[in-house]
Amino acid sequence: MQTVDLKHAYRLLNHGPTVLVGSLHAGRANVMAAAWAMPLDFDTPKIAVVIDKATLTRELIDASGVLSLNVPCVAQRDLVMAVGGMSGKNHPDKLSRCHVSSTPAPHTGVPLVDGCTAQLECRVLPATAHVAGPHDLILAEVIAAWADERVFSQGHWHFEDAPPELRSLHHVAGGHFYAIGEPVNALPVANA
Amino acid sequence: MQTVDLKHAYRLLNHGPTVLVGSLHAGRANVMAAAWAMPLDFDTPKIAVVIDKATLTRELIDASGVLSLNVPCVAQRDLVMAVGGMSGKNHPDKLSRCHVSSTPAPHTGVPLVDGCTAQLECRVLPATAHVAGPHDLILAEVIAAWADERVFSQGHWHFEDAPPELRSLHHVAGGHFYAIGEPVNALPVANA
Repeated sequence: MQTVDLKHAYRLLNHGPTVLVGSLHAGRANVMAAAWAMPLDFDTPKIAVVIDKATLTRELIDASGVLSLNVPCVAQRDLVMAVGGMSGKNHPDKLSRCHVSSTPAPHTGVPLVDGCTAQLECRVLPATAHVAGPHDLILAEVIAAWADERVFSQGHWHFEDAPPELRSLHHVAGGHFYAIGEPVNALPVANA
Repeated sequence: MQTVDLKHAYRLLNHGPTVLVGSLHAGRANVMAAAWAMPLDFDTPKIAVVIDKATLTRELIDASGVLSLNVPCVAQRDLVMAVGGMSGKNHPDKLSRCHVSSTPAPHTGVPLVDGCTAQLECRVLPATAHVAGPHDLILAEVIAAWADERVFSQGHWHFEDAPPELRSLHHVAGGHFYAIGEPVNALPVANA
């Protein structure tokens, strides 16, 4: 994994991939899947992600104020489905059951999921409880980011030059995903 | 366009497409592009979208409390780039310049962009000014939704059965998009 310039961190999520959310508090870690995540600002980079208040992930994030977003790839489709379908509340051994391997993030210790093509280490923005409460919406600042240079380098994804197993996943419903597809370029605009 | 059940409306955005945002106030309409949009709730369906406070779109939405999200397709890539790159503030004739054709939404009159494969008519949630202010984040309820049955029917996208020009667009940066790609199915999970 290579470090991504913070000014390019939004691009890791700009195309709308499903993510894995890593969390940690008092030695307890979890990883869940979330399709509802997006960039919120460029520089400093911020993200928004919806995390149900009934989840262990939400408990851990509310307690620690830190989280990671990880962009899984086609090769990890069963892992995404597994961590999305099993509750860490009911299964304290969820991460081993789901064969999730992770590395502690350098600033916060929050799990960065191995095998993902991008990882964002994030800190919850202060005073977002009024959003999280009614709408389950977590707003956070990205404090560090990494990407697999086989698919992201110099600030750009280049899925078309890498094995198809490294493409991002875009969940529709019930374990049905689409992989990201082919590049499409638009005509430049003359008059802004 | 066929009506989409409100309980399935989130699926129109769940895979993370770039959207076109339609707005209208006091007879003035606009359409802009936004990559930062996502579902916020299932039922009643809600959405979140980031819209810079410097834009005409934001002025119109703040004044009227209504907006549309529209999912453009590969065939519309130049239109997406054009409405994303030209300001309605500087160009009062932006919609004709950009060759945007639209239809008034039935409940609010907000423009639904013709040629898009999905359209969501939305009403801004009350008391979201504390979010919109600092973070440019608009939260809204979906009050009606439609989709092109060539690519979305019975609650599911089926891009793989339709012409590639109807695939959704996923913006990375600077007019570089990816089209959504091939279906990927994960193994079902036994123990939730």
